[in-house]
Amino acid sequence: MLSWALAADDELEIGAMDLDICGPSLPKMLGCEKETLHESNLGWSPVYVADNLGMMSIQFMLPDEDAAVIWRGQKKSALIKQFLKDVDWGKLDYLVIDTPPGTTDEHLSVSTYLKETGIDGALLVTTPQEVALLDVRKEVDFCRKAGIKILGLVENMSGFVCPNCGGKSRIFKPTTGGGEQLSKDLGIKFLGSVPLDPRIGKSCDSGQCFLDQYPDSPASDAILDVVDALRDEIEGEATI
Amino acid sequence: MLSWALAADDELEIGAMDLDICGPSLPKMLGCEKETLHESNLGWSPVYVADNLGMMSIQFMLPDEDAAVIWRGQKKSALIKQFLKDVDWGKLDYLVIDTPPGTTDEHLSVSTYLKETGIDGALLVTTPQEVALLDVRKEVDFCRKAGIKILGLVENMSGFVCPNCGGKSRIFKPTTGGGEQLSKDLGIKFLGSVPLDPRIGKSCDSGQCFLDQYPDSPASDAILDVVDALRDEIEGEATI
Repeated sequence: MLSWALAADDELEIGAMDLDICGPSLPKMLGCEKETLHESNLGWSPVYVADNLGMMSIQFMLPDEDAAVIWRGQKKSALIKQFLKDVDWGKLDYLVIDTPPGTTDEHLSVSTYLKETGIDGALLVTTPQEVALLDVRKEVDFCRKAGIKILGLVENMSGFVCPNCGGKSRIFKPTTGGGEQLSKDLGIKFLGSVPLDPRIGKSCDSGQCFLDQYPDSPASDAILDVVDALRDEIEGEATI
Repeated sequence: MLSWALAADDELEIGAMDLDICGPSLPKMLGCEKETLHESNLGWSPVYVADNLGMMSIQFMLPDEDAAVIWRGQKKSALIKQFLKDVDWGKLDYLVIDTPPGTTDEHLSVSTYLKETGIDGALLVTTPQEVALLDVRKEVDFCRKAGIKILGLVENMSGFVCPNCGGKSRIFKPTTGGGEQLSKDLGIKFLGSVPLDPRIGKSCDSGQCFLDQYPDSPASDAILDVVDALRDEIEGEATI
């Protein structure tokens, strides 16, 4: 979703890298899960879902869509290294890296390999439940220990508007104030909340761009606001 | 939730083991995240949340609730071995093992270590979205390759009843028929669907038993039906 939103700006070149080796979902969401990889003498070419949006995922290497990748950490780390080294990304303005939840091999590898080129920072995404916030607290601790700047926190699935009566209900009730309160507690920037819209899930399932399909929905507004806040955060940093 | 439901039968001894080393949430959900471990000459004692429900999680070993466990796969595997070998579980009727999503170190280790004692099987949980079903297909492939019997599939967050108007809406619309259709396609047993009830999240966040708090809710009925179907599946197997 972030990749689509960044790619909406034609002048930017975006790369999206799916590090969820054992459960890749980015290709499905970007509507390119049937693609396979092409190799040139410059290395693997990313799969282009738009003129300025290329992506890479292990999904493209699987013989069959449902096949499981049963790999331990070391093997996953080796593949991540290849994704960074052997893929012909071209010149990119942004490389969006989607990691699985947690603080393990994938996170350690990517932060180590990218240490030299530099990472702008990490965008943390949560849902309002206390059990999800618990994981975010651990990820904050990880970023701080690994020296990765935290760009901010986004709260997803923040509220639900009933299509029958228009009444708003909070499906996942934040017992302790949700993402916004957590950001305050931990001293990180709160970039906004995205409401739960059943059409987002539908767009993801069919691999279409929700922002193009429903440009006037409150969720689209919220997503674009988050992306603006994020770009400010990254570019503000770059000009200093 | 499954552990609570099984433990509702006083005559059973239940153990719950949280294998999500980098994002343990079971202690929070069972309301015991502040506990620490005790060691006797028989090994570590599980933390008892009810007379017949003991549990084990790395959370109990952390110096502070928000600390991240930044470990690669090998270290996680070593801890999982200790959880099985060095914990004084006593005599158990059921050991419920909660794994993180995916098909990696945790899954390989636990299936290897338990090969000799035997695993009754795996209960797969999904939500209705196509991207979640994709992961389940991979887990089915894993279980088949690892020789683990699949007890069945449960669909969670299946529908939402608006508290204002009582209208039922499907928040996560299953574009391809959801969990039930997938079960048919893959030849596995469909054990039932649990509707999305905001109070479930609230109970999990506060560490209370949803089944005790709202025994008459449709979600509680659904959960107990799933557990009955699951016990039939396991015990039916045992008597053959």
